Amino acid sequence: MAGPSISIIGAGNVAWHLAPALDNSGYRVNEVYSRSRGGAEDLVSKLYEAEINESLDFSASTSGIFLLCIPDDAIEEVTNEITIPQGAILVHTSGSRSLDVLGDVPGVNIGVFYPLQTFTKGKKMDLQEVPIFIETEQKEVEHTLMNMAGAISKKVFSVTSEKRLALHVAAVFASNFTNHMLAIANSIMIENKLDYDWLKPLIAEALNKSLAIGPDKAQTGPARRGDLQILDKHVKWLSKEESLQEIYRVISQHILDKYQT
Amino acid sequence: MAGPSISIIGAGNVAWHLAPALDNSGYRVNEVYSRSRGGAEDLVSKLYEAEINESLDFSASTSGIFLLCIPDDAIEEVTNEITIPQGAILVHTSGSRSLDVLGDVPGVNIGVFYPLQTFTKGKKMDLQEVPIFIETEQKEVEHTLMNMAGAISKKVFSVTSEKRLALHVAAVFASNFTNHMLAIANSIMIENKLDYDWLKPLIAEALNKSLAIGPDKAQTGPARRGDLQILDKHVKWLSKEESLQEIYRVISQHILDKYQT
Repeated sequence: MAGPSISIIGAGNVAWHLAPALDNSGYRVNEVYSRSRGGAEDLVSKLYEAEINESLDFSASTSGIFLLCIPDDAIEEVTNEITIPQGAILVHTSGSRSLDVLGDVPGVNIGVFYPLQTFTKGKKMDLQEVPIFIETEQKEVEHTLMNMAGAISKKVFSVTSEKRLALHVAAVFASNFTNHMLAIANSIMIENKLDYDWLKPLIAEALNKSLAIGPDKAQTGPARRGDLQILDKHVKWLSKEESLQEIYRVISQHILDKYQT
Repeated sequence: MAGPSISIIGAGNVAWHLAPALDNSGYRVNEVYSRSRGGAEDLVSKLYEAEINESLDFSASTSGIFLLCIPDDAIEEVTNEITIPQGAILVHTSGSRSLDVLGDVPGVNIGVFYPLQTFTKGKKMDLQEVPIFIETEQKEVEHTLMNMAGAISKKVFSVTSEKRLALHVAAVFASNFTNHMLAIANSIMIENKLDYDWLKPLIAEALNKSLAIGPDKAQTGPARRGDLQILDKHVKWLSKEESLQEIYRVISQHILDKYQT
């Protein structure tokens, strides 16, 4: 069940995972382009027949799908520079960028192929469990991209721009902001000459519990208990760092409002 | 190497883990008291020779240590009611309560025995890896409690009230607030008819990465990139819920300030 062949633009974390997975699932990768020649060479060495494309001119390519695996803020620029054959589909992999950002070139189709995961080069990952969200404007393009996603993941969904935005905001809270809470904990530990590693069993167990029973049931802590005395003590203690104090205050207030009604 | 025997006050999550661990490590548990008779019976059934104490009157007990495994906001009340033998040590297990909260009864020693972990009844946990923090005012009491902690954990530390406060604030960020970020993500998903389970592979992988390489290196997302366009889009999208918008704003600003300098 071979799909259309593919060209990959970018050789970072996302390309490093998607390109080989597609290449192993009947979606032959023809070309790889990257601003970093070394990155492109590394990626090509992991693929069956792919070659390096020296520029963003893909007018001679036989690929049907051009997959942008590049930083969100490079999509617009690359879209303005790239040339792909008539009838081909230009696709980005960003959760936060609109479909429109891919422009309005006559004869070129556009789509979004958003894998909801954080990728690390060199670290194996089971893509089958990674949800992939497809957004397009034409049924035919949707069909093509849903098939391509379905070749590497069991969890493929067609979403609107609006839903994808909600999904991305939720993902920011669920991964970027949780990580920043850990960064704050880390900085508090360091400033007070305490070892961040001491927190790791707690962090791991709290997350396991949250994933197992759901975050609402798993919530604990002074704000959950409505323990105003401790909240006050903590806020006062944080007074030497106003921005941290503010973060502590607004999150605690949100927890209080949610549970103490 | 038998230590002094122990009485346990409370039969909740903390008691459920500490009492059997101590009972299996040469610290015989003599009595258990709980407001919930059923809870006390369950816990006693897991211990070698322990019996139920019907009240907070322990004046006839032969225990040397009385371990309060009760909610933080019950410590003061229980401390006022409890009677223990002269020379015994009254200990609480809270991260947030001061040592002083145990009062100033002549002939009674006091201490804190704070296991840095979130416990769940019925769920096995390797206490050996759970850090335990000891706070006391007398060397002898410290020695006794450090020994007791060392019998069940490899990670035992003596801390001051000040350090324990820092530790507790860090723990609130690292577990309570991370969990609340997940609760917010959950509510956004539900409100937008999206499935929270789709986020789970991302949540698990982001945390694994953070624990492996540290939260500073692991930070990603629009604020980390300084992507003001997306931040603005997200803040606008959250305008229907002011408190969430505020949380998004202050955390993003803190990330921006940290990395964009």
